[in-house]
Amino acid sequence: MRVFNFSAGPAMLPKEVMERAKEEFCSYGATGCGVIELSHRGKEFTEIIERAIRNTRELLNLSDEYSVLFIQGGASLQFAMIPMNLLAKGGFAEYVDSGVWASTAIKEAGRFGELKVIGSSKSTNYDRIPEVRHFKPNQGSSYLHITSNNTIYGTQYHYFPEMPREVPLIADMSSDIMSRVIDVNDFGLIYAGMQKNLGPSGCALVIIRKDLVERANKDLPTMLRYSTYVDHNSLFNTPSTFAIYLYALVTDWMKKKGGISAIEEINDAKSEALYETIDNSDFYKNPVEPSSRSRMNVVFTLPNDELGDKFVKEAAKAGLTGLKGHRSVGGIRASIYNAMPLEGVEVLIDFMHDFEKSNG
Amino acid sequence: MRVFNFSAGPAMLPKEVMERAKEEFCSYGATGCGVIELSHRGKEFTEIIERAIRNTRELLNLSDEYSVLFIQGGASLQFAMIPMNLLAKGGFAEYVDSGVWASTAIKEAGRFGELKVIGSSKSTNYDRIPEVRHFKPNQGSSYLHITSNNTIYGTQYHYFPEMPREVPLIADMSSDIMSRVIDVNDFGLIYAGMQKNLGPSGCALVIIRKDLVERANKDLPTMLRYSTYVDHNSLFNTPSTFAIYLYALVTDWMKKKGGISAIEEINDAKSEALYETIDNSDFYKNPVEPSSRSRMNVVFTLPNDELGDKFVKEAAKAGLTGLKGHRSVGGIRASIYNAMPLEGVEVLIDFMHDFEKSNG
Repeated sequence: MRVFNFSAGPAMLPKEVMERAKEEFCSYGATGCGVIELSHRGKEFTEIIERAIRNTRELLNLSDEYSVLFIQGGASLQFAMIPMNLLAKGGFAEYVDSGVWASTAIKEAGRFGELKVIGSSKSTNYDRIPEVRHFKPNQGSSYLHITSNNTIYGTQYHYFPEMPREVPLIADMSSDIMSRVIDVNDFGLIYAGMQKNLGPSGCALVIIRKDLVERANKDLPTMLRYSTYVDHNSLFNTPSTFAIYLYALVTDWMKKKGGISAIEEINDAKSEALYETIDNSDFYKNPVEPSSRSRMNVVFTLPNDELGDKFVKEAAKAGLTGLKGHRSVGGIRASIYNAMPLEGVEVLIDFMHDFEKSNG
Repeated sequence: MRVFNFSAGPAMLPKEVMERAKEEFCSYGATGCGVIELSHRGKEFTEIIERAIRNTRELLNLSDEYSVLFIQGGASLQFAMIPMNLLAKGGFAEYVDSGVWASTAIKEAGRFGELKVIGSSKSTNYDRIPEVRHFKPNQGSSYLHITSNNTIYGTQYHYFPEMPREVPLIADMSSDIMSRVIDVNDFGLIYAGMQKNLGPSGCALVIIRKDLVERANKDLPTMLRYSTYVDHNSLFNTPSTFAIYLYALVTDWMKKKGGISAIEEINDAKSEALYETIDNSDFYKNPVEPSSRSRMNVVFTLPNDELGDKFVKEAAKAGLTGLKGHRSVGGIRASIYNAMPLEGVEVLIDFMHDFEKSNG
């Protein structure tokens, strides 16, 4: 039985992508080897990485001002690379604290220079996105860093602060990249670990405006300089070839689905159906301030912890897995990234109704 | 047709491993998901990473003094992490230059402190391992760094300098890890990108003596400190889960084969048969000083470049791929890592005889 996997990440990939990858796992095209066994300098992998970059440009409507990079180490390494490259010596950067990952990024950046935390929702247990809609950067700021979606709390930015070109907006979009239409021109740098919306773990997608690469500190370890990846098309050393291959398949699939706007419509339908189910019930509750609700991670609680545990166990038996909330907040979390079909959400909603009837 | 892939890396994986990974690609055990879709905190992946570590300990006969770590970024990131962690402030480290990768490691380490290059074979085009058998470290050295096998030139250490405990021997074993029996107690740190003998690209195996983790500089970015990986069992952030899974399968396979000593016997048979073929011919030549010949990468030249190109093309048609020498040295390179069966080498030797007859 193939289940509906609501795990927060690594997360389910599109069924078609998984089947295609399985089909050609041991023999890719005419090579007689698996992709995983092929040289990263050979013509087959060159075609794959070029397609991956081309798909990214098409889906996000990227101008030539931006470079598309694949970097190992996940978002956690980006927490260090961003200030190492872009926090001006003797200057400062501005950060918004919207949860554990945002504050981890802040803690890491603090090793490299002065920071100003210009908004935080910590005092309300991160139940909302801090209000930074009309934020104006302080004079001399190197950049503003935000976390566009917060998986643990189920919150998401539904606007982005408008920044002047010299103070770029930098966003950790690990958990909502390519889930909705954005204008990349509003950002200086976007990064995302692949393992939620894009592919497997072990690789981050980084989209960077080229003038920032020029602006960056040049005196850094080779593998921590954005210019190394720009100058070598992410092939300075051996990249995570299988991750890039799966990312190419996932982005092929997104294009076939009609691109990000078509996927956004499905994501809206999925999250609206779930929130409606919660809001129409006295049994389930969503703790998030309504205008900050995430369309990727829908969190909810039951009347008590015992019922929550029972819910997770019985759901798993019904083929709905990975629903346990993050250990730091408890409750239930349904992660409904791009690869989760509407059908999976419908089955979950049916299960929620049945569970409420039996236990409410 | 499944080919014999002599690529230097990413390289072929054992047939049994590839078939098993394909079989369970979309559905691992009773989960109803692929391994690639599973949470790195779930019980299935926990079992996988624990097995991967246990297999490493068994195969290398590791004492409790050593930790087994999985780190993204390949050997290239280790070139920086080693001096960042282990080059004492105001001190120096010693390096041996045996080729391009050794000298890249030297260049990178030079960003972090003073180095002494205590042996080099550059003047003879890296045709041998520099003589460092009886090397004694200079007073105050932080460590000695070597590259145990040099893929481009086809050279390999067949001894290791004996170092006092306070000056650890550090080895980049990317291209010969687990290909032959070594005593890990002779080393302070061993590292290897997985993509030659161990699994896919995108993950490095690092084996470190625990007192060195303690000795290391603590004031480093989180993802660049060995202690982060030791303290969190390589799960501080999401690791490259699929790479670790394949590594667990590859090390399972090695154990089933009889462990490293059994694999070493096959590797000896493979390389001896190839060198014998070359040495018994006036048509093929191996440029390496005989006592430095690699058992992993056998390089040879033909009477001229045109014949070399023809050899590569005709071999590929016969199902023997990836034989082109590195672009910096030309000629032919047969990479015969653990996963290459003796049969593949026998087919190559038959092809070499036929090619010589038709073109000699």
